[in-house]
Amino acid sequence: MIKADLLLHNAHVLTMDAEFHAFPEGALAVHGGEIVAVGPTARLLAEVEADERLDCQGRTLIPGMVNAHTHAAMTLLRGLADDRRLDVWLLGYMMPVEREFVAPDFVRVGTLLACGEMIRSGVTCFADMYYYEEVVAKATAEVGMRAVCSQTVLKFPAPDAESYEDSLAAAREFIANWRGHPLIVPSIAPHAPYTCTPEILRACTDVAVEFDVPLHIHISETLQEVQDSREAYGMPVVPWVKKAGLLEAKVLAAHCTHIDEGEINTLKHAEAGVAHNPSSNLKLASGFAPVAEMLRAGIRLGIGTDGPASNNDLDMFEEMRLASFIAKASTHDPTSLPARQALAMATRLGASALHLEHLTGSLEAGKRADLVLIDTSGLHNQPQFSHDPDAAYSRLVYAAKSSDVTDVMVEGRWLLRERELLTIDIPPLLEAAAGFARRIDSFLVELEDSLLSKLVAIGGAEREESYEVQIKTRVPDPVSLITAVENLEVVRRAHYREYDTYFGFADVSQGRLRYREDEFVDERGDTFNVRYRLTLIGPASEREYAQSVLVSRSRFIAPARHSLRFYREYFKPASEQDIQKDRLRWLVRFKGNEFFINLDQLLQPALDGHFLEVKTRTWSRRDAEEKAALMVELLGALGLPDAEEVKQEYADLVGD
Amino acid sequence: MIKADLLLHNAHVLTMDAEFHAFPEGALAVHGGEIVAVGPTARLLAEVEADERLDCQGRTLIPGMVNAHTHAAMTLLRGLADDRRLDVWLLGYMMPVEREFVAPDFVRVGTLLACGEMIRSGVTCFADMYYYEEVVAKATAEVGMRAVCSQTVLKFPAPDAESYEDSLAAAREFIANWRGHPLIVPSIAPHAPYTCTPEILRACTDVAVEFDVPLHIHISETLQEVQDSREAYGMPVVPWVKKAGLLEAKVLAAHCTHIDEGEINTLKHAEAGVAHNPSSNLKLASGFAPVAEMLRAGIRLGIGTDGPASNNDLDMFEEMRLASFIAKASTHDPTSLPARQALAMATRLGASALHLEHLTGSLEAGKRADLVLIDTSGLHNQPQFSHDPDAAYSRLVYAAKSSDVTDVMVEGRWLLRERELLTIDIPPLLEAAAGFARRIDSFLVELEDSLLSKLVAIGGAEREESYEVQIKTRVPDPVSLITAVENLEVVRRAHYREYDTYFGFADVSQGRLRYREDEFVDERGDTFNVRYRLTLIGPASEREYAQSVLVSRSRFIAPARHSLRFYREYFKPASEQDIQKDRLRWLVRFKGNEFFINLDQLLQPALDGHFLEVKTRTWSRRDAEEKAALMVELLGALGLPDAEEVKQEYADLVGD
Repeated sequence: MIKADLLLHNAHVLTMDAEFHAFPEGALAVHGGEIVAVGPTARLLAEVEADERLDCQGRTLIPGMVNAHTHAAMTLLRGLADDRRLDVWLLGYMMPVEREFVAPDFVRVGTLLACGEMIRSGVTCFADMYYYEEVVAKATAEVGMRAVCSQTVLKFPAPDAESYEDSLAAAREFIANWRGHPLIVPSIAPHAPYTCTPEILRACTDVAVEFDVPLHIHISETLQEVQDSREAYGMPVVPWVKKAGLLEAKVLAAHCTHIDEGEINTLKHAEAGVAHNPSSNLKLASGFAPVAEMLRAGIRLGIGTDGPASNNDLDMFEEMRLASFIAKASTHDPTSLPARQALAMATRLGASALHLEHLTGSLEAGKRADLVLIDTSGLHNQPQFSHDPDAAYSRLVYAAKSSDVTDVMVEGRWLLRERELLTIDIPPLLEAAAGFARRIDSFLVELEDSLLSKLVAIGGAEREESYEVQIKTRVPDPVSLITAVENLEVVRRAHYREYDTYFGFADVSQGRLRYREDEFVDERGDTFNVRYRLTLIGPASEREYAQSVLVSRSRFIAPARHSLRFYREYFKPASEQDIQKDRLRWLVRFKGNEFFINLDQLLQPALDGHFLEVKTRTWSRRDAEEKAALMVELLGALGLPDAEEVKQEYADLVGD
Repeated sequence: MIKADLLLHNAHVLTMDAEFHAFPEGALAVHGGEIVAVGPTARLLAEVEADERLDCQGRTLIPGMVNAHTHAAMTLLRGLADDRRLDVWLLGYMMPVEREFVAPDFVRVGTLLACGEMIRSGVTCFADMYYYEEVVAKATAEVGMRAVCSQTVLKFPAPDAESYEDSLAAAREFIANWRGHPLIVPSIAPHAPYTCTPEILRACTDVAVEFDVPLHIHISETLQEVQDSREAYGMPVVPWVKKAGLLEAKVLAAHCTHIDEGEINTLKHAEAGVAHNPSSNLKLASGFAPVAEMLRAGIRLGIGTDGPASNNDLDMFEEMRLASFIAKASTHDPTSLPARQALAMATRLGASALHLEHLTGSLEAGKRADLVLIDTSGLHNQPQFSHDPDAAYSRLVYAAKSSDVTDVMVEGRWLLRERELLTIDIPPLLEAAAGFARRIDSFLVELEDSLLSKLVAIGGAEREESYEVQIKTRVPDPVSLITAVENLEVVRRAHYREYDTYFGFADVSQGRLRYREDEFVDERGDTFNVRYRLTLIGPASEREYAQSVLVSRSRFIAPARHSLRFYREYFKPASEQDIQKDRLRWLVRFKGNEFFINLDQLLQPALDGHFLEVKTRTWSRRDAEEKAALMVELLGALGLPDAEEVKQEYADLVGD
């Protein structure tokens, strides 16, 4: 006789083992958190001596599902900003909010809620990647789920680290502390090749290899990433990370939306796992991953929900179905990724993608008792046919819903019984979540209200408390002016073509935002460099006058790392105006002070004549006023002693 | 004061009217089945005098969803055959089962179950297309749902009609009887351009125009359909049906997966409605419909589930989400089809696709009271943000589940209250459905067991109770034989190249199946025609011998209208063998009887020498024996009196 704590019987058992053994009248025995027997009910009733028996009432018994890639705590950001481009979503919403709010308590509440949602939908194991991963690990272990918890390392400052050295050290400590835990596999996550340096990839790989833990990373999520990699390194992403040594670790690569046959073979050869994230890839329009090809190559291919901020839920039933649908449609072959294989991806293959196939992913004696009961008697899953044995898989993948999950066990412990969560107290968590949502709402409302906050939020301008001193005037004779400037002490000179786009807003007190491309022109008139900058120009009312010179609060300038399109979607201007001009620019030293001199000609819209701008900056109002006086002297030296001041911006001069 | 039967208050009302008015603290008043007021709770509490008030507890109130294309009764075929190609699925499973089982009771049970499932998931109105549509209409009206019920017309015999004239007459009578019903809009459904003749399309249009009812049709579901239309008529599908006059009716075109810009404009100009069916199009790998383009053109574009045999459910939440996901991914633009617009497709636009926008699809005074309450307080929909007013749509489309629907009203009548169906008694229906499933299972098991049944099931061979008389022998001198044959009375002669594929099966008593391409060769050796045939060849044990001539039961022959690939997937042979030969064939008259003479040379696999086959057929065993005797005489006349009989089939001669 086999001794067991518990015998589950009267279940339709889909073992999801490599031969897809199934027992329509099946049973399973658990002892000490381990599966000790699985087979037909009649046999197990005879062979197993169990302390307790549970009649499964004909429900379907499957291995617990494996969510192969998520950011659990981002549950608190679900629905924060949908229907946006990836860059606007990420840089305009996710990252500013994360910088402001992500802290241990945020991570704890988000992770616990995510665990509740996942358990309810039949997930027993997930691969997480986030900040404060020790908090994720604690919360998950407390709830009783299994997880690969991956501490993020980035080349930028992160919510939980000032520098990558800090996160690396934290990751190391976290892994050392948690290695060997029965439920938690600690892991390291260099976020993505484009957010890490080769040195960081190398260092992370060394940690993963040293502790023999998985390494979790985003790979080739978008076509842009592949193009950038080709441009920067002359190769797509997988060969690049291979060159960096990354594939020496037990890799779990999330997405792999855009990888080619060679890259698939490389990943296969390295025994890397891949997490396919169909909802996220569709919702963010990242593309269709080559799922059929990866399966053909024998990749350890799991399915993930990605974070609930880009999904917007943690429902593996939806992901399975979608994985199958997308594979069929994108290969024009309805026999692609049949139901049975989709369920395998959500269970056994998912476990192998996480390098946990020895523990979970199938109902086999010797594996840990991670399992799920599903009630397929619902109206939406009737009638049921039996002529084709694959119909049982088809019911789960094409018609079942996460709300059909009734019971969930991990490591022999019930986490869900008859749809009731046993290890998480949800109401206080929802209250805490609502509190975070209110604060985030206020933060975003304020952000949306202030151009400057929005500019700061995307990691741009610093608030510089300084003054700008400026005069602008028409130049009747540009040739004489150039001669006069060249007679001064010239520190350096430049020639640009400037393409400006001014964003106007309904609330004029916010000022205007200028997106500028500076084309640096060499002596032959060729462009040899381009610089992109974003400038927040305060409203006219902020200006003050000293003689005929403007003294104003200095502008906020940020490097414009994104496209005009990005800024247009992010700032949502009420109006737009384009101006193109030719600019000769000198930095001159005059009576011990440096001044910028611009000689401008407006090309588009065309405006007759040339304009002179003289500018300087300072931290002190008094110094600004002194410089304004000097500037009047400088105008005299340039042969324009009675220059008539032009107070308007070019944008106003040329009209709308 | 506004008089009302019922005032719903404390709801987050999304009216889905053309301006997307929404009332986070909203209310709605119903009187006599009509919406009489909608607005902020405070205002309606003051303005409306209601017999009854219902506190909606902060749930979201939306118009009832419109399932713009389905075959409700096919609920009974859910999960019958998944992961198959469209033709195998349709011709190999759906149509044989429908021919055998579809009858009024089947349609009634299937429709009622479908109504139950749809109500539970927030659908109040659907467009159906099936057989016995009068039964669908009765069941739907009884349950209290709104529907466009479309009687199918086909050029083939249908489960409910021997000929298209019969279905046309039935459709006419059905429409005349049901026109003006408060819930049911009767309609006519020429199934698809490729299953109808131009005359049928014309006749259906005339009926639809005469009674001013919608015309429901499948249009451009697959690329194959478009290619076939181009080949047959020199134009894609929409221009072709326009030419047939179809667009004179109020059309509801299902699928439109493959239509170009010109076709979109044609449909828009004709004010045709389109039903987009994302799950079905993905699951059957039909493709990605040009949703963004259709919306841009202003098409009346709804969302449908299609039948549960190709979906496999009737869940409009899934379809909305999928419509949005697919539009984003296929246009590489995550801002495509935002949540608000997806919900509009599932409500107001869906109603307009069905030409019912005056009745339903939005919460506006004057429309019928078709509405749904949704509980968004579930764990999977928390937390909730309010900084962006579109977040309410996002919650419904990207995170809500059909199981979140709590209450459904149609025409002022509650059909669902607190998740309980009020107008359908489900248990006896499930019992009836299980009975159908058992009988269909048996039918399919038997079908799978018998090659002949499978052949008959796909509309192929007729069972011919006749005898075949045949002798085969080696020919030492083919030139002399040709001379001898030409000296007989030759009725006609032909020259083929024959490409045969023999399917073998584990159960040899089933015989073999031969797929044959006959290439007709002209005098210059060029192919001028090709014929495809399928022949079921009984096992050797069925044969009898008379002298050296074989008399056997005749074979079953069917025109092979599908591809070798189709038959391979459908019959699932255990082995396959290819044989290619050159055949000269004569039909000769000899002593008052007709005989076929074949002079064969095996080309692939090559076999030395030539073979003669003499054949004839008859309905009578005695006649067969007399002809066998005559055949021996004929061999003498051909100069082969002592011909040694070759008893084997070519497939056996050449070995495996």
